[in-house]
Amino acid sequence: MNNKWYIEKGDQGDVVLSTRIRLARNLKDFLFPARLDAKGRQTVNETVRDALMEDNTYEFGYLEMKTLTRSQAVSLAERHLISPEFASSVDGRALMLTKDESVSIMLCEEDHIRLQVMKAGLALQEAYAIADEIDTALDKRLAYAFDERIGYLTQCPTNLGTAMRASVMLHLPALTRIGHINRLASTVSKLGMTIRGAYGEGSSPKGDLYQLSNQITLGITETSALHNLQQIAIQLVNQEREAAKLMLKNPENNDKIWRALGVLQTARLLSGDEFMELISLVRVGAANNILNFGLEQLNELIVNMQAATINAREGKNLTAAERDAVRATAVREALKAEG
Amino acid sequence: MNNKWYIEKGDQGDVVLSTRIRLARNLKDFLFPARLDAKGRQTVNETVRDALMEDNTYEFGYLEMKTLTRSQAVSLAERHLISPEFASSVDGRALMLTKDESVSIMLCEEDHIRLQVMKAGLALQEAYAIADEIDTALDKRLAYAFDERIGYLTQCPTNLGTAMRASVMLHLPALTRIGHINRLASTVSKLGMTIRGAYGEGSSPKGDLYQLSNQITLGITETSALHNLQQIAIQLVNQEREAAKLMLKNPENNDKIWRALGVLQTARLLSGDEFMELISLVRVGAANNILNFGLEQLNELIVNMQAATINAREGKNLTAAERDAVRATAVREALKAEG
Repeated sequence: MNNKWYIEKGDQGDVVLSTRIRLARNLKDFLFPARLDAKGRQTVNETVRDALMEDNTYEFGYLEMKTLTRSQAVSLAERHLISPEFASSVDGRALMLTKDESVSIMLCEEDHIRLQVMKAGLALQEAYAIADEIDTALDKRLAYAFDERIGYLTQCPTNLGTAMRASVMLHLPALTRIGHINRLASTVSKLGMTIRGAYGEGSSPKGDLYQLSNQITLGITETSALHNLQQIAIQLVNQEREAAKLMLKNPENNDKIWRALGVLQTARLLSGDEFMELISLVRVGAANNILNFGLEQLNELIVNMQAATINAREGKNLTAAERDAVRATAVREALKAEG
Repeated sequence: MNNKWYIEKGDQGDVVLSTRIRLARNLKDFLFPARLDAKGRQTVNETVRDALMEDNTYEFGYLEMKTLTRSQAVSLAERHLISPEFASSVDGRALMLTKDESVSIMLCEEDHIRLQVMKAGLALQEAYAIADEIDTALDKRLAYAFDERIGYLTQCPTNLGTAMRASVMLHLPALTRIGHINRLASTVSKLGMTIRGAYGEGSSPKGDLYQLSNQITLGITETSALHNLQQIAIQLVNQEREAAKLMLKNPENNDKIWRALGVLQTARLLSGDEFMELISLVRVGAANNILNFGLEQLNELIVNMQAATINAREGKNLTAAERDAVRATAVREALKAEG
């Protein structure tokens, strides 16, 4: 589990956990995956794999999805390395992954190639540069489905054009608390972006973690899309900081943060939902120098305390109660040194 | 605050916090306090004081109640050294108190003399021996109102006879949790005893602390009354131990105990009610070797974290919010070393 991308210190790390760039690409000589038979998919996967292996910049592992246990597959989705859909239907699908998990490539998801780069903190340019570099290397060796007028061709029309989805994961506990998220959602939607729960849908996403991402891919350059997203992300970061300052002026909220830490440091049973609720409070405390924890450490814990990820690490399917006990033990250990 | 009676280790200390013996006595040459004027009360107080001073076994301080602040007076009641009524109406009343607070004598409460002895744990014989010793010394120097047939004469007929009230303070978290207290109350009542909340009345007393005491004073010797109370106390101790064993077999209860400790070790604001609820869980954890705290330390905390006692120690009338902050700080400090 060492040296993963998410244990890096990132820019604007108090509010931005991570940045993700995803490019969708298809090979013009093949049908879209949904229309391909098993042999066709395998040919696509191996073609892309071989093209990627010729390039030495990044070292990838190649993983046929059907060789994974269910927990291992879902754990990859929990860590946002693959889509939930990719985890649930594994036939004819393969994953390429760097050791630090910062670059992952889903083969034969909706499109032939779904290239994804993750970086800690707000790092849209850096993440895009890496994605672009790998994309360029692949482009040299593969025949992409590309139209001069439309851009990259994708199975779903909402991706046509740049076929780029950029997103940043934001921790917005203070804005959530004062009920500003709905207003924000409506604002960013007018700007061609969307904000939604990063973990769990619904009115209050787990851990107050949100994904802000671009929606428009057609008639816009990658550079403009990234620039717009960067601007909005910075605005949200500043709004959250202001709201957090106000929130923490209230002694009751300060008290809540300390109690959340107290429970995490002592509980013997900890459900995933309660963990996310409490770690969110601890994280806002750490981000505002009330508690003395590295944010990277908390981010790593958020990634690792998910149900399937725990199962995968333990190498067996725990019952919910067993998992709650394992989670509690791991969290106690991680947060032992207060605070 | 050092070397008070309640920081001693007591017999059956896992369940029994303290034992209290109270004797009511009156001087035959004076009207009952309620009928005495200011001068009469003062004469009674000074007569008893002087008689007590002649005896050198115990060293008493003498305190006119009107010289105390309201917080100081209520704090004495919170610590069960005086009755709430004695704290609320202070005119013509005086208190004699040993340094360790184990012996207190209310002068001109309902009766001229209310002599009380407290001991840690279950110690009915020991406490009674001390009370009897002081009573005998006073008897030599004062003319008690005593009737050969009835016994000691008291203002309220419910005290006639031995005029002795013996009680033990019990911590019954497990019996409370399984809802056995009502049944116990009805049983002990048939045996001439009563069990009620030691702090706060109502269905679930604060901190799951109960006072078991004898009700019958007429037609019974002190020895029989103490013997009966001892028997019942031992039964309750055993029942609580059994119930606690069952309670702690449930991992959720174990979890609750640890979380209670976590909150007490981190909270920045702590109301009196919440403190009692949480310390009760911590205490059952300590009594059953889940947590590593001395019970005397927890007992002392229970005594000292009461509202007026905090005010008296701080030397000012804090607002509820200020007091909650002071309480939280003191509790964190006391329970710092886990656990």
